Amino acid sequence: MKIVSYRDEAGGSRVGVVVDDAVIDATGLLRPQAGGTSAMRRLLEDGRPLEDILSGLDGDPMPLDDLRLDPIVPDPGKIIAAPVNYFDHKAEMQEAYHVDSLGLFLKAPSSVIAAGEHIRLPYTDRRFDQEGELALVIGRRASHVTTEEALDHVAGYTLLLDITMRGGEDRSTRKSFDTFTPIGPFLVTPDETGPLASLRLRTWVGGELRQDADIADLIWDVPQLIAYASSVMTLHPGDVITTGTPAGVGQIGHGDRVAVAIEQLGRLEVGVTSEGAVACPTKGATTGPRPPATVTPVRAR
Amino acid sequence: MKIVSYRDEAGGSRVGVVVDDAVIDATGLLRPQAGGTSAMRRLLEDGRPLEDILSGLDGDPMPLDDLRLDPIVPDPGKIIAAPVNYFDHKAEMQEAYHVDSLGLFLKAPSSVIAAGEHIRLPYTDRRFDQEGELALVIGRRASHVTTEEALDHVAGYTLLLDITMRGGEDRSTRKSFDTFTPIGPFLVTPDETGPLASLRLRTWVGGELRQDADIADLIWDVPQLIAYASSVMTLHPGDVITTGTPAGVGQIGHGDRVAVAIEQLGRLEVGVTSEGAVACPTKGATTGPRPPATVTPVRAR
Repeated sequence: MKIVSYRDEAGGSRVGVVVDDAVIDATGLLRPQAGGTSAMRRLLEDGRPLEDILSGLDGDPMPLDDLRLDPIVPDPGKIIAAPVNYFDHKAEMQEAYHVDSLGLFLKAPSSVIAAGEHIRLPYTDRRFDQEGELALVIGRRASHVTTEEALDHVAGYTLLLDITMRGGEDRSTRKSFDTFTPIGPFLVTPDETGPLASLRLRTWVGGELRQDADIADLIWDVPQLIAYASSVMTLHPGDVITTGTPAGVGQIGHGDRVAVAIEQLGRLEVGVTSEGAVACPTKGATTGPRPPATVTPVRAR
Repeated sequence: MKIVSYRDEAGGSRVGVVVDDAVIDATGLLRPQAGGTSAMRRLLEDGRPLEDILSGLDGDPMPLDDLRLDPIVPDPGKIIAAPVNYFDHKAEMQEAYHVDSLGLFLKAPSSVIAAGEHIRLPYTDRRFDQEGELALVIGRRASHVTTEEALDHVAGYTLLLDITMRGGEDRSTRKSFDTFTPIGPFLVTPDETGPLASLRLRTWVGGELRQDADIADLIWDVPQLIAYASSVMTLHPGDVITTGTPAGVGQIGHGDRVAVAIEQLGRLEVGVTSEGAVACPTKGATTGPRPPATVTPVRAR
């Protein structure tokens, strides 16, 4: 099943099921709740299996292209990310350590945007890169789960761009500016992705293919990431874990279009603007991990 | 005004106003809402000034000591923290940089515990330290606010222990284990704290006074922290900003009692247990900032 988050004309948060190029509104199937959380959070926190909740689906299909999409989880409780989780990315960043020494970092939940929106670069004098990633959304509370149990806690998979300022500031700062977490367009349930190790991730900036990687090459695979994360912090429905980026990170700038795709998950594309950018008030420009000076073209395969 | 978060006998989230050693339940004054967020989040998101909402207070006082306290914000949207924000702490950690190069980091919202609860140390083979801090709770959305406007966005102040694993893992991991953010016991509104620069923060482990600092010695003061944080990420009601720790961090262990106090904010005390601790699965023990080898006793003043 492919699910979308979108807004109705009054600005209300809604969820729908995607069938071909159309969407059927499923918001009416959620338990009534006046709370401030999104329809997606209500769906994930319901407790019943998604297919049970959505089995009563009954409405007129609307063209997907007509909808104003929301970030797939508009209000994640946490966004947990893997810092260096592909060996080729470790090499291009000249990093001494990878995820098994670094653990995980957090991105601000307020940084999410939807497919079709714009990344806003905040500073005129700093470098910003794209990092395309496979992400997952937690559907069931997880604390100290084993790698064998881990996938039972996943509601589905989606695409994420971990937009990053280079430098010596803390990762949470460099990756948490408003708009720095494009996420979506769909939540794809595990029965529709096929084996995770068969997925292939590609990222483009403009027409240029920058990242082309096999998810099988993750240093910590998805069950390991979930099991470890759940041993540090309790995971709740609506939490997002993003799995890290492969080689091919590179600078983005005003006017660029950035896209990440995995065939089974669709394509997430956003714009980039530096309108309103100012001089950076912090002094980390010359410290921190050193990214590749130029973008290395991806070889055809 | 002093506000507390607590649980009723059915486990429901409540807020009350503290009058001397008693609490008057104020939950009935909140707009009705069936959502999953806490009474404190509902209070902070109401939009009306706290004194207006709470002016209708009318109930029987209950002894404060009889209540089962919750973390003052049980479900913060974000916990934003300043990494090196006192010069004496920069010196004791042999840090090359402070907040104006490092920016801010994030702690997991799932790490909060209430006064009286226990910090659970997860590993047998790693060092864990106490860091006592002044924290503030956002009461009004803030994006790109100036230092002059910043304090208008504060609902109140509270105490926070930023419990920290030493080593080379990302700060978000080292500081986000479940139970690593004791916070409370009260939310004290700005009219009751007096000038922030007059506050004095002290932290004890067992009977030993480890930290004794003037809030006036913050490198980035409270308005600067809020203004900068709001320029990176939009701040929402219920977000917490913790201001950083002064010199005097040191190791904590099973059986310790850890307390932090500011006269105007009360005293936050918790226990420490290493029950259930295991060997650390990540390899950052010998990297990262180097903490002081021994605790330096605080001189009387």
